[in-house]
Amino acid sequence: MDAASLSGIILGISLIIGAIFINGQLDNFFNLSGFMIVFGGTIAATLITFQLKDVFTAFKAAFFVFTEKKMDPNDMVETMIELCTISRRQGLIALSRMEIEDDLLKKACNLIADGSKEDLIRDTLHIEIESMKQRHFIIQDVFRKMAVYAPSFGMMGTLIGLVQMLRELSNPETIGPSMAIALLTTFYGMLLSTLFFLPIAGKLKDRTLVEVINLEIIFEGAISILEDNNPLFVYEKLSSYIPAKRRRPRRPFFVKK
Amino acid sequence: MDAASLSGIILGISLIIGAIFINGQLDNFFNLSGFMIVFGGTIAATLITFQLKDVFTAFKAAFFVFTEKKMDPNDMVETMIELCTISRRQGLIALSRMEIEDDLLKKACNLIADGSKEDLIRDTLHIEIESMKQRHFIIQDVFRKMAVYAPSFGMMGTLIGLVQMLRELSNPETIGPSMAIALLTTFYGMLLSTLFFLPIAGKLKDRTLVEVINLEIIFEGAISILEDNNPLFVYEKLSSYIPAKRRRPRRPFFVKK
Amino acid sequence: MDAASLSGIILGISLIIGAIFINGQLDNFFNLSGFMIVFGGTIAATLITFQLKDVFTAFKAAFFVFTEKKMDPNDMVETMIELCTISRRQGLIALSRMEIEDDLLKKACNLIADGSKEDLIRDTLHIEIESMKQRHFIIQDVFRKMAVYAPSFGMMGTLIGLVQMLRELSNPETIGPSMAIALLTTFYGMLLSTLFFLPIAGKLKDRTLVEVINLEIIFEGAISILEDNNPLFVYEKLSSYIPAKRRRPRRPFFVKK
Amino acid sequence: MDAASLSGIILGISLIIGAIFINGQLDNFFNLSGFMIVFGGTIAATLITFQLKDVFTAFKAAFFVFTEKKMDPNDMVETMIELCTISRRQGLIALSRMEIEDDLLKKACNLIADGSKEDLIRDTLHIEIESMKQRHFIIQDVFRKMAVYAPSFGMMGTLIGLVQMLRELSNPETIGPSMAIALLTTFYGMLLSTLFFLPIAGKLKDRTLVEVINLEIIFEGAISILEDNNPLFVYEKLSSYIPAKRRRPRRPFFVKK
Amino acid sequence: MDAASLSGIILGISLIIGAIFINGQLDNFFNLSGFMIVFGGTIAATLITFQLKDVFTAFKAAFFVFTEKKMDPNDMVETMIELCTISRRQGLIALSRMEIEDDLLKKACNLIADGSKEDLIRDTLHIEIESMKQRHFIIQDVFRKMAVYAPSFGMMGTLIGLVQMLRELSNPETIGPSMAIALLTTFYGMLLSTLFFLPIAGKLKDRTLVEVINLEIIFEGAISILEDNNPLFVYEKLSSYIPAKRRRPRRPFFVKK
Repeated sequence: MDAASLSGIILGISLIIGAIFINGQLDNFFNLSGFMIVFGGTIAATLITFQLKDVFTAFKAAFFVFTEKKMDPNDMVETMIELCTISRRQGLIALSRMEIEDDLLKKACNLIADGSKEDLIRDTLHIEIESMKQRHFIIQDVFRKMAVYAPSFGMMGTLIGLVQMLRELSNPETIGPSMAIALLTTFYGMLLSTLFFLPIAGKLKDRTLVEVINLEIIFEGAISILEDNNPLFVYEKLSSYIPAKRRRPRRPFFVKK
Repeated sequence: MDAASLSGIILGISLIIGAIFINGQLDNFFNLSGFMIVFGGTIAATLITFQLKDVFTAFKAAFFVFTEKKMDPNDMVETMIELCTISRRQGLIALSRMEIEDDLLKKACNLIADGSKEDLIRDTLHIEIESMKQRHFIIQDVFRKMAVYAPSFGMMGTLIGLVQMLRELSNPETIGPSMAIALLTTFYGMLLSTLFFLPIAGKLKDRTLVEVINLEIIFEGAISILEDNNPLFVYEKLSSYIPAKRRRPRRPFFVKK
Repeated sequence: MDAASLSGIILGISLIIGAIFINGQLDNFFNLSGFMIVFGGTIAATLITFQLKDVFTAFKAAFFVFTEKKMDPNDMVETMIELCTISRRQGLIALSRMEIEDDLLKKACNLIADGSKEDLIRDTLHIEIESMKQRHFIIQDVFRKMAVYAPSFGMMGTLIGLVQMLRELSNPETIGPSMAIALLTTFYGMLLSTLFFLPIAGKLKDRTLVEVINLEIIFEGAISILEDNNPLFVYEKLSSYIPAKRRRPRRPFFVKK
Repeated sequence: MDAASLSGIILGISLIIGAIFINGQLDNFFNLSGFMIVFGGTIAATLITFQLKDVFTAFKAAFFVFTEKKMDPNDMVETMIELCTISRRQGLIALSRMEIEDDLLKKACNLIADGSKEDLIRDTLHIEIESMKQRHFIIQDVFRKMAVYAPSFGMMGTLIGLVQMLRELSNPETIGPSMAIALLTTFYGMLLSTLFFLPIAGKLKDRTLVEVINLEIIFEGAISILEDNNPLFVYEKLSSYIPAKRRRPRRPFFVKK
Repeated sequence: MDAASLSGIILGISLIIGAIFINGQLDNFFNLSGFMIVFGGTIAATLITFQLKDVFTAFKAAFFVFTEKKMDPNDMVETMIELCTISRRQGLIALSRMEIEDDLLKKACNLIADGSKEDLIRDTLHIEIESMKQRHFIIQDVFRKMAVYAPSFGMMGTLIGLVQMLRELSNPETIGPSMAIALLTTFYGMLLSTLFFLPIAGKLKDRTLVEVINLEIIFEGAISILEDNNPLFVYEKLSSYIPAKRRRPRRPFFVKK
């Protein structure tokens, strides 16, 4: 689990609850029908906006982004250098015998080993990367749109409460509590948007940036293998994607025979 | 009918109606003249902004996007592989004898069969795709603009109500109800914008993205046919538009004689 | 006159006036000094932002966009096919004898007939189109900025009214009417922005898109003439700018001798 | 002095002062400490955001944009045609003897006369133009950011006033005037932003667009000189930057001997 | 320490404190729990949005941007001219013996001295610059997001306070002070956003622009060295990144033997 995100969520919720406790009671802030209109309305508008499968994928991605470890670009650079060295010593065909986990890298190796033309490999990998970017963008967009819808439904809930209150002004004692309940939905909408939807959208975007770097290392590495470049120079090129401080020095690589 | 969208609309409306029912009467929230100013005003501003035919097309598109099935890119890939195999075995001219539904694909096949130069085919298909994107963008824009106009007319309705109320402060008993009615238009404006116009604009954009993928598969496939590529490699390239999990494996294709 | 826009303006104004009439008097909503501050302030800020000639051009464009007929791209395609056929049969020099209305097309024909190099023609037409786009963008921007300034001056008017009212709270009977007047400027600002400035900016943008299509048809057509392409293929290429449903079928063209 | 801008400023200020005069006293709207917090706060945040020299340059540019005459692109086209003609008749070296005011044009002429390669000239002029655009963008950004900061500090001033007022509710007579003063800062913030900062940023952007056109005329002209193009065609190309109506017809140019 | 920024921070804080002092007591504006919810909530949402290391890097960068001196592009141009002259006289291999501080320049020199192909050097430096830009963008984004979250948590704090106040309307004397406290969080949120987060994000962006100029000078300089260009022309090209007024004239450079 991503420690920073976990502590962020715990910190955010405790601060809100703490702020409520200091001067009042927590149950003043529970209002199921208010929460239903904000959360349910947001889900409703989201279901109209996106395809069902994109909404599911978005929620799954939101879960995994906080739990799954992401790949270190240094590992990817090392893998590419290894493949580059092997292909130089044992020929391009050797790439088809490698055991590779990453989908794109596997495809790249197969295409190279099958003797495809450079243009085709370039186009194919480029389409893979662009399609992946676009799919990730839609996933992020689910949460960005939810971050827009939630405060809006929050205000609608408050307007419903206000209209009902204004219709029954006869009893002045109920004005305060009625208005308090009406304001709760605005609070819910902002809380959902600011503490959950916006940060999740941000995290997903951040994760996409990291993944794209890995994919670009694969892309540039595959082209270098095709062009039969010196692994030394390939390392210089691929490691440029990594900030100088985190860059792992090149390890001499010996092909096992 | 798109199940997610349908349930989204039903869920959204039931939540709003439910929230109203719990603490008050539904008819407190009906106000025809208020609704007229918000919905009518939005339509009026939209008619000034766009050409009449674009507004009609937008409403038609909004209807069809929720009812029509969209094409699976896997089918399109299969069709292109089929055409590719046929053209390799029977010559480019065979493409003109195929029965093809899709407009762009038909045009591409005719151009290829007529022996047009690659440049011309590339340019023509590119213009078709870009023009289609632009037209779709205008269609989406109709709803995006309506999503901007609606809350604005909602607030204008509220201002009209407030000004009238403030002019007649003599009878304090009418203040509450008058203000309740004034607030209704703001509520209408937000509801129309958040539960209808914004999600419809989003859905149309989503659908455009899917259609563009199909068109790009046609484009890249047509170029591959022209370059007489191996269907095996063409499959690798075209299937890159589809996420790995949903990608249909290549089916061996036998040309009927 | 553009029927949709006209009915939009009439519909919008009638709805606003109707909404006012139902529960009050129309003259409650007239306030000259309030209107002066909103409309005048908007004009003042616009004069500082833009050059005087751009503001004039913008107002003229706003007038013509609702009255002038726009050119049908189908006509432009036909013209280009005609020119293409003539140049093939009678030589490029024949283009200089044609009577052409459109400025860009005339320039293109003259350049071609004068025997300019393709690069120069390409660059010249490209610069013409880009410059035109930029000028149109500024024209649209005048109204977009006015749509931003108007609500802002509206709120400033309301603030002036509120400050004056709050200074003289001694007589409670005047509070209501004073506040009503103060709110009017906010109403004016939103009305000007939502029913006039934003839709006009949108219409101008829409018209630019249509004109750009015509210019691109000229551009691509001129290049095709230079490259001496078959009119049949030129038709296929140029008609791609037009949606399939509105595309006029190619008419056989006979050169008059 | 730019007449439109001057009249805009006078018109805007008179309208605001007039609106205040009609129903109240002008001195109700003077509040030095309130103005200090809005204007001073805006300056403070701007000083943190930008480098000191950029803030100075921005204020200087804001002054000059309203006073300095801008160059007519027609003049620039004429100069380029003149240089083109001279270089054709007397050789490229003649360009180094010309007296030229514009910095970029001077640099271009020197590079050409020194016999630099076309690539280098192209790159150098391109860098000059892009760097200039970026510097101008920062200058505009100073005012755009001020237009964001000012209303924000205005609202902070109002919040300070409200908090202080709410702390001392014992004397109800002071509520009105206190609130009036509190609202003044919001008014100041909006006035500064809408009547000054936003329009100035817009004017600076407008001026940049005009200057960039002049620089692009120099760029394209210099390339044409290098390629030894016919001045007739160079005129056709360069005049494309100017709208057809304002385009000055080509004047025959005779080289003085 | 950056003098403008320091004086900006001091000016901003003194103005706010001064404005509070004039009409009230400073301690009316201290509310620890209110500050906790705004600042803590902002930090919480930021931790969810970004990776922990990016948040740390952002805070470090925010500190250094106000203290560290930035490199003068004139120095970088001079260094490149020096390297260019040396490589011309002593051969490319001499570059590997130079003592160079800048990471990118060192890498460029090593690649050149090692005899890498121009394409590889171009790609490698390009990736370095783009990766650096992207990392800087994330760093700026941390503060931009904080500037969005802070006012949002401020309003949530106010809503919590209002709901609690409205629940206990029995004692009218506490309404004023309760509301004053509730408004404080909105004030904190705006202050943090406008006086700290937005300006810091702006400063970081500004600094990135300057650094990118230095990197581009290295990039273009390295390419010029590879192409063995005349230092005189290299100076003309590289100095184009610097505004004419601040450009340092070329100093004749003598290689020490």
